[in-house]
Amino acid sequence: MNTDQKINFASENYAGAQPDIMQALADVNKGSVPSYGNDEYTADAIATIKRHFGDDIEVYFTFNGTGANNFGLGAVAARFNSIYCSDVAHLYVDESTALESFTNCRLYPVPSESGKIILSELKNAIKRIGDIHHPQPGVVSITQPTEYGTVYTVDELKAIKALCIENNLLLHADGARYFNAAAHLGLSLKEMTRDAGIDILTLGGTKAGMMFGEAVIFFTRDTSGSRKYNLKRSMQLASKNRFIAAQFTRMLHDDLWLKLAGRTNNLAAEFEKRIANIPGISIAHPVETNAVFLKMSPAIHAKMQQHAYFYYWNDLKEEVRLVFSFDNTLEEIDEFIGLLKNYTK
Amino acid sequence: MNTDQKINFASENYAGAQPDIMQALADVNKGSVPSYGNDEYTADAIATIKRHFGDDIEVYFTFNGTGANNFGLGAVAARFNSIYCSDVAHLYVDESTALESFTNCRLYPVPSESGKIILSELKNAIKRIGDIHHPQPGVVSITQPTEYGTVYTVDELKAIKALCIENNLLLHADGARYFNAAAHLGLSLKEMTRDAGIDILTLGGTKAGMMFGEAVIFFTRDTSGSRKYNLKRSMQLASKNRFIAAQFTRMLHDDLWLKLAGRTNNLAAEFEKRIANIPGISIAHPVETNAVFLKMSPAIHAKMQQHAYFYYWNDLKEEVRLVFSFDNTLEEIDEFIGLLKNYTK
Amino acid sequence: MNTDQKINFASENYAGAQPDIMQALADVNKGSVPSYGNDEYTADAIATIKRHFGDDIEVYFTFNGTGANNFGLGAVAARFNSIYCSDVAHLYVDESTALESFTNCRLYPVPSESGKIILSELKNAIKRIGDIHHPQPGVVSITQPTEYGTVYTVDELKAIKALCIENNLLLHADGARYFNAAAHLGLSLKEMTRDAGIDILTLGGTKAGMMFGEAVIFFTRDTSGSRKYNLKRSMQLASKNRFIAAQFTRMLHDDLWLKLAGRTNNLAAEFEKRIANIPGISIAHPVETNAVFLKMSPAIHAKMQQHAYFYYWNDLKEEVRLVFSFDNTLEEIDEFIGLLKNYTK
Amino acid sequence: MNTDQKINFASENYAGAQPDIMQALADVNKGSVPSYGNDEYTADAIATIKRHFGDDIEVYFTFNGTGANNFGLGAVAARFNSIYCSDVAHLYVDESTALESFTNCRLYPVPSESGKIILSELKNAIKRIGDIHHPQPGVVSITQPTEYGTVYTVDELKAIKALCIENNLLLHADGARYFNAAAHLGLSLKEMTRDAGIDILTLGGTKAGMMFGEAVIFFTRDTSGSRKYNLKRSMQLASKNRFIAAQFTRMLHDDLWLKLAGRTNNLAAEFEKRIANIPGISIAHPVETNAVFLKMSPAIHAKMQQHAYFYYWNDLKEEVRLVFSFDNTLEEIDEFIGLLKNYTK
Repeated sequence: MNTDQKINFASENYAGAQPDIMQALADVNKGSVPSYGNDEYTADAIATIKRHFGDDIEVYFTFNGTGANNFGLGAVAARFNSIYCSDVAHLYVDESTALESFTNCRLYPVPSESGKIILSELKNAIKRIGDIHHPQPGVVSITQPTEYGTVYTVDELKAIKALCIENNLLLHADGARYFNAAAHLGLSLKEMTRDAGIDILTLGGTKAGMMFGEAVIFFTRDTSGSRKYNLKRSMQLASKNRFIAAQFTRMLHDDLWLKLAGRTNNLAAEFEKRIANIPGISIAHPVETNAVFLKMSPAIHAKMQQHAYFYYWNDLKEEVRLVFSFDNTLEEIDEFIGLLKNYTK
Repeated sequence: MNTDQKINFASENYAGAQPDIMQALADVNKGSVPSYGNDEYTADAIATIKRHFGDDIEVYFTFNGTGANNFGLGAVAARFNSIYCSDVAHLYVDESTALESFTNCRLYPVPSESGKIILSELKNAIKRIGDIHHPQPGVVSITQPTEYGTVYTVDELKAIKALCIENNLLLHADGARYFNAAAHLGLSLKEMTRDAGIDILTLGGTKAGMMFGEAVIFFTRDTSGSRKYNLKRSMQLASKNRFIAAQFTRMLHDDLWLKLAGRTNNLAAEFEKRIANIPGISIAHPVETNAVFLKMSPAIHAKMQQHAYFYYWNDLKEEVRLVFSFDNTLEEIDEFIGLLKNYTK
Repeated sequence: MNTDQKINFASENYAGAQPDIMQALADVNKGSVPSYGNDEYTADAIATIKRHFGDDIEVYFTFNGTGANNFGLGAVAARFNSIYCSDVAHLYVDESTALESFTNCRLYPVPSESGKIILSELKNAIKRIGDIHHPQPGVVSITQPTEYGTVYTVDELKAIKALCIENNLLLHADGARYFNAAAHLGLSLKEMTRDAGIDILTLGGTKAGMMFGEAVIFFTRDTSGSRKYNLKRSMQLASKNRFIAAQFTRMLHDDLWLKLAGRTNNLAAEFEKRIANIPGISIAHPVETNAVFLKMSPAIHAKMQQHAYFYYWNDLKEEVRLVFSFDNTLEEIDEFIGLLKNYTK
Repeated sequence: MNTDQKINFASENYAGAQPDIMQALADVNKGSVPSYGNDEYTADAIATIKRHFGDDIEVYFTFNGTGANNFGLGAVAARFNSIYCSDVAHLYVDESTALESFTNCRLYPVPSESGKIILSELKNAIKRIGDIHHPQPGVVSITQPTEYGTVYTVDELKAIKALCIENNLLLHADGARYFNAAAHLGLSLKEMTRDAGIDILTLGGTKAGMMFGEAVIFFTRDTSGSRKYNLKRSMQLASKNRFIAAQFTRMLHDDLWLKLAGRTNNLAAEFEKRIANIPGISIAHPVETNAVFLKMSPAIHAKMQQHAYFYYWNDLKEEVRLVFSFDNTLEEIDEFIGLLKNYTK
């Protein structure tokens, strides 16, 4: 098959599986092991994740990010709860009505800046606790890094967590690109989750370079023992779960996650450097992980689309998104910028 | 990792990915392609499936069987509908409450014999059409082959279909092991679906030897264009869908599906031959595909469990299930039967 | 308006509001009181109900029986739970898919005799506890009196309760005609609920002679405080709740409930006496409350339908149901039987 | 019972049933009639409503407003749809998660002014039609009159309708106080619904002076015939429906609706006149129906609460709401204003 030769800055989902991950899949493809996560590979993956995130956690695996978010939130939220998220959260704008269907909860959008929930707005939004007529505040869901590639600092997380504690809310992080946030913060995975007050984490694998698979980590106790039943109910329990498990084990082995995330973050940083001083083009949001948002006119976007995949992100604001995958290169960036300079001069 | 050395007759889900399938995954793991099924590999898989099942169909891909069944049924059934299935259907006893959660429909169990719905019982069960108080009959869901490995003949399918037409119901087939049924019937995939009156098919990939992935085929028209939205809502839309697509393309290429299904069906037939005349052991259901159900006492089962994985299927009836995967061998069967003879003499 | 002059033996829902109840509605129709149950009339009704059912209970009001059953079950069952009910339960055959929509639970039907769950069948049905693939047993729901007018004795209740305790299940009673069961048993309302092990009761008002309104009584503790939120979510919270409350207060005042239920039970007993020795007509189920089920041919039913409303209940078994409301009379019974004798001689 | 002697300006739900309505309930409380809306009283009510709203409509009855909104919206919206409403809509802030539970749809809030959706904001909000990842725009729901008592003019309705048509959306009106909007506009009920482009109307009865009951009117065709099944599924189908029907028949007879709504609108207008020139108190939103919103400090509110029920509506903006019921009087207004003048001088 003749795959497309255009540069891919559209999405990590356009990339395939990173070679070490692919090798890990091949390595575990031998012999018979119990299904549905009752196998040694899954036990290994859970043990590995516990080494990175702390012992007192529960780990479940899902196929994709929408499944992970909804399983995780549905496992902790009551059906009369509201979930607060940013007004640009993936959960809110890119996951159809999966959340309503599976959790029955209300999503309340909170105004954001470069993807981060504005704390004072969140404070105002949390209200009417104890009022039977109003969806009862249950969870705050942040995206880390945000849909704009920005990263909540630990101080910012702690401020949100304080508000959660004050109002008896849980704190969920949608970490579809969590490794990129970790690489940016320079913190251990435990420091930026458990220690920062995250209660439920969607830990993304696919965008980091896996073929498929995400993990959901609960830092809260489950006194009812009901999470596993909700996983099955969510249609996200893999029969041959060894293949999700092995990818996570490999990703966390030998700092592969950090190498990959560090590399794609660096591509964004290099892109940012090179983009300066191009007329009509400017950085729209702080570049902190592996995405760059640019102000760009539709006309220029149309021309550049001939050479590279990248999304027009916001029509009203004339912003485009470029996001870097494990298999992108500095050469592609140079080529892109060369073409862009040509079109804008 | 030291995988278990016991013989696996427990489930095809204990097996890994069949080597040709694994190769297909490696083959498409290059370059960037659009995500969420907008890629050439997915287009290819759909075209391939159409060549086998007929042109006028719609094809969607899901991660697993529970997802496929629920997406498929939820896409055609109204929320006030009932779905009739056998009282031993996977949908009814092994998919938690995913169906109620996602479709909101009522499941009505119909008495069965060796897994097949008894037609006269189905006839009695379909009632109160037009009565607002009663869940309105919407779909009949059969499992083909059944959970007991038996296969509805085309005549049996047509009799059920006639009842469906008479009552304005759709006919769904849960085909987690569909290729095995096809190999048994000696019919083309189109003859046993479209031509036999199936409206919606869950076409299983995982148990046939794939790493993950199922297809849902609609033989009915979708005048509303809403199926794709329901797929996303079902949390079953894969971001890197090329990897599901490539497995199906390979499975249908060069009759791989038929070779694999023929081989596992044959293992069951060989097992049946060899099992004759063992005291206290008897065949519990007709052996038509890749599963064998035996009458076996708990004591013998306990002994055999030391050597092989296989499920005690029905406590009350003292039945065990053995099911054969692409990687099982005649040698394993001989070893199993040798051990069994030893324990029962 | 010229209302129908046919005798009504079809349903208590064909009757209006009993005169004392109507008076109670008029009596509380004065002045302003807080809405949504925060009024003194509601407080009074709850206090009155507690006097009859015990102090340590929670009481909520709903509009109708489907709402009451689903609110009550949805408030205690997890979404991955199964609910066991008889195969002829109103919940199972006459409430559309409200249960699936609102609770997401699975209903498992249990074979029954004259409406009562057969204990040994229930025992067999409760299985696979702890198995993530199977809906997890959560609640047993009985109908008291049953859809066939029969009444579980306290011993029968205790046997079911023992099974519930053994399997960690809750016991719900759909008591759309609960007062009739109480009148039959000759027990206090507390003796036949709390003392017999009922955990959740749907206490019917409408069929007993109210204009509308049911109560849901929880005998279990609600550690989460979440029931009130689920009531609002169930769309069953009345804004002018005084009108439901006042009807229950009146019903429980001065033994009105017992007078009405005793009277309608007696009509059934008198009917049973008079029906003996009519050729081709026989009693189909024990007559214990206010319903009589007769074996009757379709031809006779058709003739009698000219004079009286009553349902053909079961086509296969040729059974009809007659049910007596607060406003039925012995004269109507005599007239009915006279006509019937005429048609059958 | 000693009902509260404080003035009620809190809610129409604090009032009882209007005397003519109460009489209508008594009038139909005789004889037996078929249940579940198959009676002549219900047929009469539907015929009466058709005379006012047009012949080519479908009419259903529900118990309360939350039920009406959700039944109505759930009957027309697909589960992957979004519903746009104002950010202060009752649906959005006062009906718990009933909408998510029953319809599974996403609610998208649109910025509003005095309760009215801002057209340009609605225009921006409707987007990504055809994009499977995004909830698909399905319905615009307005509140008429709004939660702030303001009324969309026919021109405003037509502008919203034009946007709906352009984007293939349906237009729903939550008319809990619809008669007040009609009295204000001086239009016939048909002119302000069918002729203005409303597709689904929640026609409120309870706040207008009924004991309970709302109607849902569909101006769209239902090709599937499925609405009645969804009504049962919504747990809103009344068994003794004659009592809801009779109230609506009476309300629409002899212009009772207009007399009551005109009267309560007038009380608000009189209140507005009398409130001028009180220091620290000002009108917060245009007074168009039977509600008055005032700027009032918490201190004054606390004092006035000793004498009258009325809600502090918005803490941040220091707004209180007074709403007038059929049984409020000019004397109560004078008393209230006298007290207020005393506290503020």
